[in-house]
Amino acid sequence: MSNYNPPLRDMQFIIEEWLEAPLDWAGWERHSDLDAELARQVLDEAGKFARNELAPLNARGDAEGCRFDNGTVTTPTGFAQSYSRYVESGWPSLCCAEEDGGQGLPQLLNVALLEMLASANHAWAMYPGIAQGAYECLSELAEPWLKERYLPLIVSGEALATMCITEPQAGSDIGLIRMRAEPEPGGSYRLDGNKIFISGGEQDMTGNILHLVLARLPDAPPGSRGLSLFLVPKWLEQDGEREHNGVHCTGIEHKMGIRGSATCSLSFEGATGWLVGEPHTGLKAMFVMMNSARLHVGLQGLGHAEKALQAATGYAAERRQMRAVSRPAGVEPATVDPIGYHAPVRHTLLELRAVTEGMRALGYWTAHMLDAMHQAGEGMDAPLKQRVALLTPVIKAFFSEQGFSLSSKSLQMFGGYGYMNEYGIEQTLRDSRIVMIYEGTNEIQANDLLRKVLADGGQGLRELLALVRDEGRCLASSFPAYADRLDTLCDAQDEVMGMLVDHQDAEYPYRAAGNFLRLTGLLLLAYTWARTVPKCVDRKDAFYREKLDTADFFFNYLLPEYRYRVDLIKAAASPMPFVGPEER
Amino acid sequence: MSNYNPPLRDMQFIIEEWLEAPLDWAGWERHSDLDAELARQVLDEAGKFARNELAPLNARGDAEGCRFDNGTVTTPTGFAQSYSRYVESGWPSLCCAEEDGGQGLPQLLNVALLEMLASANHAWAMYPGIAQGAYECLSELAEPWLKERYLPLIVSGEALATMCITEPQAGSDIGLIRMRAEPEPGGSYRLDGNKIFISGGEQDMTGNILHLVLARLPDAPPGSRGLSLFLVPKWLEQDGEREHNGVHCTGIEHKMGIRGSATCSLSFEGATGWLVGEPHTGLKAMFVMMNSARLHVGLQGLGHAEKALQAATGYAAERRQMRAVSRPAGVEPATVDPIGYHAPVRHTLLELRAVTEGMRALGYWTAHMLDAMHQAGEGMDAPLKQRVALLTPVIKAFFSEQGFSLSSKSLQMFGGYGYMNEYGIEQTLRDSRIVMIYEGTNEIQANDLLRKVLADGGQGLRELLALVRDEGRCLASSFPAYADRLDTLCDAQDEVMGMLVDHQDAEYPYRAAGNFLRLTGLLLLAYTWARTVPKCVDRKDAFYREKLDTADFFFNYLLPEYRYRVDLIKAAASPMPFVGPEER
Repeated sequence: MSNYNPPLRDMQFIIEEWLEAPLDWAGWERHSDLDAELARQVLDEAGKFARNELAPLNARGDAEGCRFDNGTVTTPTGFAQSYSRYVESGWPSLCCAEEDGGQGLPQLLNVALLEMLASANHAWAMYPGIAQGAYECLSELAEPWLKERYLPLIVSGEALATMCITEPQAGSDIGLIRMRAEPEPGGSYRLDGNKIFISGGEQDMTGNILHLVLARLPDAPPGSRGLSLFLVPKWLEQDGEREHNGVHCTGIEHKMGIRGSATCSLSFEGATGWLVGEPHTGLKAMFVMMNSARLHVGLQGLGHAEKALQAATGYAAERRQMRAVSRPAGVEPATVDPIGYHAPVRHTLLELRAVTEGMRALGYWTAHMLDAMHQAGEGMDAPLKQRVALLTPVIKAFFSEQGFSLSSKSLQMFGGYGYMNEYGIEQTLRDSRIVMIYEGTNEIQANDLLRKVLADGGQGLRELLALVRDEGRCLASSFPAYADRLDTLCDAQDEVMGMLVDHQDAEYPYRAAGNFLRLTGLLLLAYTWARTVPKCVDRKDAFYREKLDTADFFFNYLLPEYRYRVDLIKAAASPMPFVGPEER
Repeated sequence: MSNYNPPLRDMQFIIEEWLEAPLDWAGWERHSDLDAELARQVLDEAGKFARNELAPLNARGDAEGCRFDNGTVTTPTGFAQSYSRYVESGWPSLCCAEEDGGQGLPQLLNVALLEMLASANHAWAMYPGIAQGAYECLSELAEPWLKERYLPLIVSGEALATMCITEPQAGSDIGLIRMRAEPEPGGSYRLDGNKIFISGGEQDMTGNILHLVLARLPDAPPGSRGLSLFLVPKWLEQDGEREHNGVHCTGIEHKMGIRGSATCSLSFEGATGWLVGEPHTGLKAMFVMMNSARLHVGLQGLGHAEKALQAATGYAAERRQMRAVSRPAGVEPATVDPIGYHAPVRHTLLELRAVTEGMRALGYWTAHMLDAMHQAGEGMDAPLKQRVALLTPVIKAFFSEQGFSLSSKSLQMFGGYGYMNEYGIEQTLRDSRIVMIYEGTNEIQANDLLRKVLADGGQGLRELLALVRDEGRCLASSFPAYADRLDTLCDAQDEVMGMLVDHQDAEYPYRAAGNFLRLTGLLLLAYTWARTVPKCVDRKDAFYREKLDTADFFFNYLLPEYRYRVDLIKAAASPMPFVGPEER
């Protein structure tokens, strides 16, 4: 039995009507044979896999967790079998280039796939989670022989990849990484050191595991500019013989959530690896992976929000408690109403929809920009690249925060039942919490956005504001109240951005960064709803009517948060004291 | 090894300097032999019990959970032994009346005890959690023979009590309760039906368990006005013989948190019980219990916040990552600083302190009012009673929301480590989540506050506002910025209260209720900090300096939330659509 229904109708709306992606595909060489129909088929298949194959394993995977025994990891019942079917269906190759044996489909379809995997079974989705990033990183930076040997394994799904960054003393501060890499005769390197928190660092799904490892060459300068990236396979192959490389899993973590995902400690003892990219450019190489990883991680937040929305919607319709103060038009008064009629529950349902569907539009829009960049090619893609660079930290942090807070709001609707394992929503809440932390904590994302805004004096963000203002203008005659709010919001964001750019107090922008990111997230949600409204007016279907209702709720009930964020950004001009761990 | 240090210094500050409780005690007949010194001794002992006895069992209790086997429940290792020591030390009798064999100490000391128990081990604290409420309920409403038989068991701790309200179909809507009670010859009643979510419904700590059960007499009107309260002991005693009553535990829940607390399903099959209070007044009787339970549950939120604060403070001082933009005066620049210097972490630490210490003042103030009411006696206590009635839902909902959100903020500071069981903060987050739900969901609390405000046209709340304005006036010369903010806040709250009172749209107040409660919570926090400041100026000790720094942070960084809540209350004037579970 599955408790997840892929939101195919909304995906279709966003892809076909909101983005009008098929029109773009038709004009793009890479995707000229892709049309709306084929895209629907792909997503329909992906939805079936998520709903029928992964969702039923989710609760059990949480209950069982992974087992660690003497260096080996056993994933929960059914996880490895599902991965085999994932591979058989060709999902790993979805948007790998055709010349690498991939299907060459756009990122846009990939993000829809990833959203569904995350909704259905976040823990399982961790295993193939980094594959696309590793593919992009290797195909861009690895030497031809390395690509030839390892890319096909990733494209086929025969091998999975990991990203080995964190060490006990080096979390957010990757400049503190100590892992050593010494050149060996023959062009390889010998790696020694310890990594922690490596998702899928060991598993029982694939024959080989390709570790992408940040390490320090002997002549490396200190800090993050002295890091290099290495490919270190779990198994070395030579002349058809397989030999275990010097990488060992020394344990797995016991975690709050995603308990079916093996979070491993890895020990590298004289492991053989190969440099990916130039020496001391590991940070840059990692960011080739990291940027797509951050978008994908944001989509996990979306996946949790969608799951929470579905759980809440179902329960609100079915559970009856107390007489409601008001009811939908045409519904007869009753002694006991569905809880979905009560004001606070209705608020939760509408907030879940407004934020989830807005985030979906935003995430898919970003993926479509990545496809457009790819089409435009090196050099011609600068404006889009700048926009995606701004959007990436917002998507990672804002989506993950929403995924967690919406899961909690959905759980609340269930009352005591929400706290029980049986109803599943408490797992969603636990699983969703990690997303605010990994792939760079949300505080790191806020600083990333800030640096990007300060770097060009706010120019890039002002272009985003111009897009929002354009949408506002389109609404001026039919929805003047929305148009006004968008304008006020843009003015306010422009104003506080000016304060950040012209700061005198060196710490001020850092005190304001978190709220500035949140404000930007709200701005972007507002953009998606402003762009949604004109596509839904004068449509009869309930789907469009509910979109308009949801938009109305967004503008009236959720958008007021922007003024709070602006107030907090201004408030951060006050000095912030230091308090020590005194006796209390 | 304990990871909890009772905040005795802050408790002492609030009791002795902020409330000046010892001055009141000296003038109160009941407590005239209690002084600051004795109170300190009591809290010191309570702190030792919480730190040395309960805190070390907390993680293990979570990992083990409770075991259910054929009607019996086994609590985690050490829980039952700790309860014996709790009883030996006389803690159950702390504020029971001396004529009932209690120590007759004030509620003020009891809330400090309860805060510490919740911080140290929330799951364990659930078992004696309802004892005080049951004591008050029975001593106020039970017939003399019933009191004589059962009160001493509660006072001594020999028996524990439960509150049996929820049934599968009757959660927030207790009017849907079906449990039947039929009169039997001899004045007893025969109870039949099923209850769920009963904390401590079965356990291995006490010889007897006293269930306080809401049920329906044969002639009962429908709805919540047809409920009566019954005492149903697990064991019946007659002529020195013990006989099992017809109450059976049919299972325990698997939960997100407080896993060491047994959440039981109970089946009553011809169980013998006795009426407590008049027929059909079960709702009123339950509220005798519930009001103190809601204050106590609020204190669990405080307990979690304190635990989260301690965890964060310790980690922030010890963990070093990256160079900070600014440092405390006199600290030499370093390559890698304690994370406590970084702006977002400092914000978290200050928020944890400002909210936790403010909530402590607020909760203890309320308990002290209960003691004052008791001293004033029936009829003379009306103004305080009204104030406590307003404060109770705010304390329950606001504290529990803060307990959860502050735990999450504390966890975030730990990065990946925060997500791992080992560091304990993820358990605090999980445990804290239930507090927003039980003893009436936070939505129920918001409606409760609303009804109380509407009932007297806002008069009672206006008296609270007058108190806040008074504190503001005291600050006008030395801290004019704080005074201004308090004044604006009071004006704003007065304005939106007027909107709620004069509403035309019947649903409007319900759409605004949640934010109105939150606004009231902020107002009360502001009150506590306004009242704290004058007590700390011109004091040399670091403790007072940090209080002033924390107050400053509160007024600059946290208080701006009030305008957001006011905006949302105004925004709720817009209609809120109904959205159905359409295909998406």
